[in-house]
Amino acid sequence: MAETLIAVDLNQSPLENPLIHNRWHPDIPMAAWVNPGDEFVLETYDWTGGFIKNNDSADDVRDIDLSTVHYLSGPVGVKGAEPGDLLVVDLLDIGAKQDSLWGFNGFFSKKNGGGFLTEHFPQAQKSIWDIHGMFTKSRHVPGVSYAGLIHPGLIGCLPDRKMLEAWNTREVDFIATNPTRVPPLANAPFEPTAHMGQLTGEARDKAAAEGARTVPPREHGGNCDIKDLSRGSKIFFPVYVDGAGLSVGDLHFSQGDGEITFCGAIEMAGWVHMKVTLIKGGMAKYGIKNPIFKPSPITPHYNDYLIFEGISVDEQGQQHYLDVHVAYRQACLNAIEYLKKFGYSGAQAYSILGTAPVQGHISGVVDIPNACATLWLPTQIFDFDINPSAAGPTKFLDGSISMPLSPDL
Amino acid sequence: MAETLIAVDLNQSPLENPLIHNRWHPDIPMAAWVNPGDEFVLETYDWTGGFIKNNDSADDVRDIDLSTVHYLSGPVGVKGAEPGDLLVVDLLDIGAKQDSLWGFNGFFSKKNGGGFLTEHFPQAQKSIWDIHGMFTKSRHVPGVSYAGLIHPGLIGCLPDRKMLEAWNTREVDFIATNPTRVPPLANAPFEPTAHMGQLTGEARDKAAAEGARTVPPREHGGNCDIKDLSRGSKIFFPVYVDGAGLSVGDLHFSQGDGEITFCGAIEMAGWVHMKVTLIKGGMAKYGIKNPIFKPSPITPHYNDYLIFEGISVDEQGQQHYLDVHVAYRQACLNAIEYLKKFGYSGAQAYSILGTAPVQGHISGVVDIPNACATLWLPTQIFDFDINPSAAGPTKFLDGSISMPLSPDL
Amino acid sequence: MAETLIAVDLNQSPLENPLIHNRWHPDIPMAAWVNPGDEFVLETYDWTGGFIKNNDSADDVRDIDLSTVHYLSGPVGVKGAEPGDLLVVDLLDIGAKQDSLWGFNGFFSKKNGGGFLTEHFPQAQKSIWDIHGMFTKSRHVPGVSYAGLIHPGLIGCLPDRKMLEAWNTREVDFIATNPTRVPPLANAPFEPTAHMGQLTGEARDKAAAEGARTVPPREHGGNCDIKDLSRGSKIFFPVYVDGAGLSVGDLHFSQGDGEITFCGAIEMAGWVHMKVTLIKGGMAKYGIKNPIFKPSPITPHYNDYLIFEGISVDEQGQQHYLDVHVAYRQACLNAIEYLKKFGYSGAQAYSILGTAPVQGHISGVVDIPNACATLWLPTQIFDFDINPSAAGPTKFLDGSISMPLSPDL
Amino acid sequence: MAETLIAVDLNQSPLENPLIHNRWHPDIPMAAWVNPGDEFVLETYDWTGGFIKNNDSADDVRDIDLSTVHYLSGPVGVKGAEPGDLLVVDLLDIGAKQDSLWGFNGFFSKKNGGGFLTEHFPQAQKSIWDIHGMFTKSRHVPGVSYAGLIHPGLIGCLPDRKMLEAWNTREVDFIATNPTRVPPLANAPFEPTAHMGQLTGEARDKAAAEGARTVPPREHGGNCDIKDLSRGSKIFFPVYVDGAGLSVGDLHFSQGDGEITFCGAIEMAGWVHMKVTLIKGGMAKYGIKNPIFKPSPITPHYNDYLIFEGISVDEQGQQHYLDVHVAYRQACLNAIEYLKKFGYSGAQAYSILGTAPVQGHISGVVDIPNACATLWLPTQIFDFDINPSAAGPTKFLDGSISMPLSPDL
Repeated sequence: MAETLIAVDLNQSPLENPLIHNRWHPDIPMAAWVNPGDEFVLETYDWTGGFIKNNDSADDVRDIDLSTVHYLSGPVGVKGAEPGDLLVVDLLDIGAKQDSLWGFNGFFSKKNGGGFLTEHFPQAQKSIWDIHGMFTKSRHVPGVSYAGLIHPGLIGCLPDRKMLEAWNTREVDFIATNPTRVPPLANAPFEPTAHMGQLTGEARDKAAAEGARTVPPREHGGNCDIKDLSRGSKIFFPVYVDGAGLSVGDLHFSQGDGEITFCGAIEMAGWVHMKVTLIKGGMAKYGIKNPIFKPSPITPHYNDYLIFEGISVDEQGQQHYLDVHVAYRQACLNAIEYLKKFGYSGAQAYSILGTAPVQGHISGVVDIPNACATLWLPTQIFDFDINPSAAGPTKFLDGSISMPLSPDL
Repeated sequence: MAETLIAVDLNQSPLENPLIHNRWHPDIPMAAWVNPGDEFVLETYDWTGGFIKNNDSADDVRDIDLSTVHYLSGPVGVKGAEPGDLLVVDLLDIGAKQDSLWGFNGFFSKKNGGGFLTEHFPQAQKSIWDIHGMFTKSRHVPGVSYAGLIHPGLIGCLPDRKMLEAWNTREVDFIATNPTRVPPLANAPFEPTAHMGQLTGEARDKAAAEGARTVPPREHGGNCDIKDLSRGSKIFFPVYVDGAGLSVGDLHFSQGDGEITFCGAIEMAGWVHMKVTLIKGGMAKYGIKNPIFKPSPITPHYNDYLIFEGISVDEQGQQHYLDVHVAYRQACLNAIEYLKKFGYSGAQAYSILGTAPVQGHISGVVDIPNACATLWLPTQIFDFDINPSAAGPTKFLDGSISMPLSPDL
Repeated sequence: MAETLIAVDLNQSPLENPLIHNRWHPDIPMAAWVNPGDEFVLETYDWTGGFIKNNDSADDVRDIDLSTVHYLSGPVGVKGAEPGDLLVVDLLDIGAKQDSLWGFNGFFSKKNGGGFLTEHFPQAQKSIWDIHGMFTKSRHVPGVSYAGLIHPGLIGCLPDRKMLEAWNTREVDFIATNPTRVPPLANAPFEPTAHMGQLTGEARDKAAAEGARTVPPREHGGNCDIKDLSRGSKIFFPVYVDGAGLSVGDLHFSQGDGEITFCGAIEMAGWVHMKVTLIKGGMAKYGIKNPIFKPSPITPHYNDYLIFEGISVDEQGQQHYLDVHVAYRQACLNAIEYLKKFGYSGAQAYSILGTAPVQGHISGVVDIPNACATLWLPTQIFDFDINPSAAGPTKFLDGSISMPLSPDL
Repeated sequence: MAETLIAVDLNQSPLENPLIHNRWHPDIPMAAWVNPGDEFVLETYDWTGGFIKNNDSADDVRDIDLSTVHYLSGPVGVKGAEPGDLLVVDLLDIGAKQDSLWGFNGFFSKKNGGGFLTEHFPQAQKSIWDIHGMFTKSRHVPGVSYAGLIHPGLIGCLPDRKMLEAWNTREVDFIATNPTRVPPLANAPFEPTAHMGQLTGEARDKAAAEGARTVPPREHGGNCDIKDLSRGSKIFFPVYVDGAGLSVGDLHFSQGDGEITFCGAIEMAGWVHMKVTLIKGGMAKYGIKNPIFKPSPITPHYNDYLIFEGISVDEQGQQHYLDVHVAYRQACLNAIEYLKKFGYSGAQAYSILGTAPVQGHISGVVDIPNACATLWLPTQIFDFDINPSAAGPTKFLDGSISMPLSPDL
C-alpha cells in the first residue's frame, strides 16, 4: 500500500488532529506535500467526526451540532500545481477502516437539518449498516443487501480568496432573504466550531471567521455527494491556489442519487488511496469551471430496475414550473408508497432510497409546466421479488423490525 | 407482424385521420378495441404531423404553430379495463416508417416555444439525422453517430373527467400567475386547432374546448419524454376510464435525458408494436399514482462516460435553493463549453446533448443551498477521442459544417 | 431503407434464384456490385431454403438432405477490393422477413447430422419459436422468452482457388481417416445438389464438383455461428479475390454459444442491412488470417447468470487431455440435469441452451489433464426463479407440453 | 473484518504452517471449524508458496519444482455439513496481502510444465505486476493497466475416499498411455513433496502417497481457474465428507479466460473473506455433479472488445475435429500477431492474454469439422487505440522494454 500521509485515530477527537479541517479557506496550511505522479493514502473520519454511534438510538442524529461538520483530511499540496491547472485525481481504492466496519444512515429532525422528505419524516431516525466485505446490510432495514459503490461524498481543492469571498457573499446574501427559515437556506461562516487544521491563534481565528462551510457543492467540487465518484474513477479538479490543496472526507459505503436522506448515505470512517497528476493550464484548455470526471470501470452492475416517475406537481396538487426537485420528490414518494405494500415502513423505504445504488434521472425538463424525474430502484438488491404481478404484492415483512426514532425534545 | 390497428399516411394531414388526436379528453372515442393479451401495431406521425421537413432550413422550426401538437395515435380500448386497474404495456418493438428514415432535432425560437437553454440559443435552429439501420448520424452535426434508443416520447391512457378538470384547473391557475410570459408557463386548452379523433360537430367542439394540451407529462404518463421507455420496456399505466384508452405518439429515435433541445429528441414518424395486459385493481394494490416501468433488456450500452457537474448557482452567479433545474443547466453549459474546444459550434454541442443517449443524474439534492446535477456524455459516440489529456484538446472540426438557423422575423 | 440488392421470395425455391448459392467457389459470379461506402440490403432464405416448416412435426428435421445447405445470398462484389485487403462490414441492422415471423430449432437424428449431444438426444426433434417484436418464445418450450441477439450464422468472402484447394484437400484427407463414420467427420464437395448462383452448364458443373461445402467455419469466416456477430457489429474480413465477393445467410434470431443443437439456433429467413468499406492491404498491416470483429453496442444485457462447470472427464468417467469440447459437453449436461428439476424435459432444456443468449467460456485450459469450461445461463429469461435455495427446486412445469419428436424410420 | 481463521507469514515456509496443504485427501484434519452462517477470513500464500520472487529474472519460473504446488489454506470444517449437501460459499471480498502488493505471471519452460502456447514460447519467462489499489500494471509489459477481477484459482471441498480413488485411477491410467510425454499428460500422487496439513508420521506418509495432486479441476471444483469466481460471487460446492472441508488458494489479481500462460494469472498472496451456509441434500435436489455459481455484481465492465476468431485447423494446416482447444489456440495466436503490429513482443502479448480480463468463448462447436473459438480483447485496457483503421497500426512501443527470459540450462 502507498504511504499513509494522514492517519486518523477514531478514539481521538478530530479537533485534536491538525491534519483535519472542517472549513474551506486558502490559509489552511498544507497537511502534506506530494509530487505529481505520487500515490498516497489519506485516512478520514466519518463526516461527523465520530459523533454518530453504532447503536440503536437516534438521539445522536437528533442532537448533533451541524456547525461542526464535515471533518476533512488534508489539504494535500501538490508540487508545481498552480491556479488554472487541472488536478487529476485517480481514486485507486477506497475502504472502511478495519476497526470500524459499519456505517450509518439517518434523517435529521426538521428542526435540526431536515432532509429531502423532511415534511414527511420530520423526526430524527437512524439505521446502522454493517459492512460484510464488498456488501452491506442493516439490522434496522431487513430484506436488502447490496454491493458497495464506495465513494467520497466530499472532495475538492482549496478556494483562493476571491472564490471564497464569492461563496460567502452569495450565500450570506441568500440567507438574508429568509433568515429565520428552518431548516435554513444556507450556512454562514461560523467561527466557534471551525477547525482550521494547523492554523492557531489569530491566524486561526481570522480564517475561522471567514472559512466557508463545507455543506454545499461548489465550483471546486466539494460536497457533491455524487455516488459515481466511486473508487476507480478519475476526477479533474480546478486548481485555485499554489499547491492545489486537495482535501477529502465524508466517505460513503453506498448512496442513492440525491443522497436524499441527508444524514446521509451509508456514512463511514475509512481511507482513500489516490494518485495525483497535473494538466497544466487545463482549466482554460478545456473550458473547465466545475470538476469533470470519468466513472470507475468497476461498479455494481445491478441492471434490473423498477422505475418510478414523478412530475412537478407537489403533494398538495400545486403546480411548479419545470421543477426537477419537486418531480424527484414525487418519484421518491411514489417508490416509498410502493415499497410499503411489501411490508416496509415508510422510514425503511426512505432509507433504502438514500443508501442503495438508486439512480435519479432528470428525464424531461422542457415540457411545460411539468418536469419529469425518474427514480431507478434496482430489484436485485432485495431478498424477494418486488416486481408487480397480477397477484398483487406479498407482505414479506411483518413489521417486527423498525428503525430507531428519537422525537424532538 | 401483429395487425396494424392504426395506419398513417405521411402524405395525408393528420387532421384528416380520425384515428389521430392532439388533446386529452375522456370523450374521444376509442379508435380500436383489443383484448388483454393482444399484440398490435400503431403507426404514428411525428409529433408535428409532418410540419418539420427534411431540408436545410430552420424556417419550419421557427414558424410552427405549437397549438397543433402532439399528434397521437389512438385511443385504443382494452376490453375489461376499468378505472383503478393497471394497464401493462409491453413495447415489443418500435421503428421508423420505411418511407421516412430520418428524424429532426431543433431549438425553438425563444419567442415560440423556447427550450432549456433558450437564453443561450434564442433562435430557431435545426439538424436532420439520417437513420442507418440501428444507427443515426447527421449531415449538420459531424463526428458523432449512435445506436438508437428508440422510444415514444408520449404514451398514456385517457384521463377521466375529474382528472381532466384537475389538470386544467391547476394549469390555467398557474398561467394566471404570469399570463404574458414568453415562453408561457403552460398551455391552456385551445379549441381551434384541437383534433378530437372521431368526434365531430358539437361533441367535438365541446371536448375541444376542454381538452388538455399534450405538452406536459402528468399523472397518467403522457409526454414524459423518458428516453428509457424504450422498445423492449414494460410499462404499468394507471387506468381512469373504462377501456383505458391508450394513445401513443412523438416517437424518438434517440434522446438525451431531459430532452433539453425541446424540438426535440430525434423526432420521427414510425410504428409501435405492443402488447397489453391488465392488473385488475393494480393502482390500489401497488399504491400507484404515476406510471412505473421496467427498462428494456436491449439498449445501447455505451459505458465510457465523461461526466460534467453543475450546481444551482446560475450563469449570473445567482444562488438558487437546491434547484436541480439550474444545476442541470450548468452541467449542460459546461459540457457545451468543453465540446467547443474540439471544434463544435455551441449549437452542435447542444444538439448532441439533446439527441445522444446522455444521462442526466440528480446527484445531490440536500446539501444546502446547492443542488448538484451531473451530465453523462458517452465518449464512444464520437469519431475521435474527447478525453482530457495533458496535451490539451485537438480541434477535429474546422467549422465548415454548421447547423441551419432561421432568425426571428 | 437502403436498396435491396438481393430479394428472396419464400414461396420460390432458392434453386430458382440465381442470386443464391450453396457452395464456396471463386468462379461464382457476383450477384451485384457496390462501391466502398455503400449501404445495401440482402434478403436471405433460412439456411435450409424453406425445408423446415412452422408445424408440430419433426419429420422435416429428420428427413432433410443436408447436402443442400446453406443457401446464401450473394456474392456481392465491392469495387476496388483486392486480395490482401480487409473488407469492413457494418451490420447496420438485421431482421426477420415480415411474412415469416418465426424460426425453428431442432436436433438432427444421429443418423443424419447429429449434434453436440447426439448420444443423449439421438432422434430428430424440433421446436418453433415465434418472433414478437424484439422477443421470442416457443409453444414447445414453455416458461422462457428472450430478446433476440440477431446475427448471421454464416458470412464471409469468396476463397481464391488456392484457398479452396487447401480446404478441400485437408477436409477430404480428413474424411479418409474414418470414411464411414456417422455422423461424418466432414463433408466433401458434392456436385448434384450444388447451387452455383448464376453459373450454368459446364462452368456450373465444374465449379459444383469443386465447390467447398458451407458447413464449417474457415479462414474466411463462413459458418462461424458466432452469436456475437450480431446486428450493430463491425467485421473485418480477409479478401482473397478481386471484388471480395461477400455472401451471407443462415440468419439466427438468437443462439447460445456453441450452437449446440446444430439444427440450429433460432433459424429464420430475413434480411441484412449492411455497409462496406475497405482497408487496403489490411491483412498484412494487421497480421490478419481470420476475421476479427467488434461487437454491437446494442445487445441483450441479461447479467444475472447461473453458471455451470464442466471438466474434460466424459460421461463414462474417461479422462481426456485438456479437451474443451468434452468439458463444455459436461457443463451443458449439468445444466440440462439442473433444468429438469424445474419440470423441463431434457429436450426442452437442450433447446434452451441452443437458443438463448447463453455464454460458453473456455475457463481453464492448462491445468493438466482437465480443461474446465463454463456455461452461463441467464436467469432473467425464465418466467420463474431458477436459483438454488435451501427449499429446493419447484416443478413449475407439469410436463403437459412436449417437443415434437420423429423417430428414425 | 471477520475473524482470521488461518494466517500466513510470507517470511515462513508454507511447509511449516500446519494449516496449509498441497494435496487432496479426506484424512487431512480440519484446520478450523465454523458454523453455517459464519463469516471468516483465510489468508493464503501464492500458489508456489513464495518461490517466485518480485525481481527481473525468470530463473525461478524455470527452476520451480512443480510437485510442490499448490499451497492451500484449509481445510475448514463446517458443522453439520454431510455428504450430499451443497456448501454455499459467499466470497464477500478478496485482496492481496498488504505486505505483498504485487503478483507474477510467467510461462514455464516446455521442459518443466509448459503451457498453452509452449510450442511458440518454449522458454521460461516472467512479468511482475504491481497492484495499485484496484488496478494493476507491469514494468515488463508497458501500455496496459486494468482493474482487478480478483478470484481464487483454486477452491473446493475435500474428496471422500471413493472420489479420491476415482481421480487417482483415471489419471494414473491416463499417464500410462504416454508416460514419457513432456510435459506430462497428468500428475500422479507424489509423496516426497506432499504437505498434508496437520498430519504427521505414518498417517501423513500414507495420505501423502495417496493424495491427489492439486493441478486439475475436478468434480469438487478445485483448480478451475475460472476468472469469474471473483470476489462477490456465490458458489455452490458438492460436499463429500462430514464437515465439507473447504480449502482455498492460488489467488489471482486478474486472469484471462483459459489462464493460458499457466504460470499463471497474476499470482498473488492474499486473503479471502467468506461466508458459508448449507443446502441440505442439495446435490440430489438440484442434480449437481460439479459446482455451480453466480457471478459477482461488481466486476470490471470493460465492454469495448476486439474479437479474434480461431478454427480447429492447427498451425501446420492440420485438420482437427471440432477441437475447441486448437481453435482457441489459433484465436490466441491471431491476437498475439495483431498486438505485435503495435510494438509488443510476442511474449508481452501472450502475457496480456493471460492476465487481462479477456474472454474466451466457445462460439461454434457443431459445424464439422471445425470448431470456432473467439478471444475477446478489451480495448479499454490499453493506453492507446488498438482498433484497426484505414491508416494501419502505429508502433506505440519501441521495444526497449522486454520480459525477462531464462533459457533452459
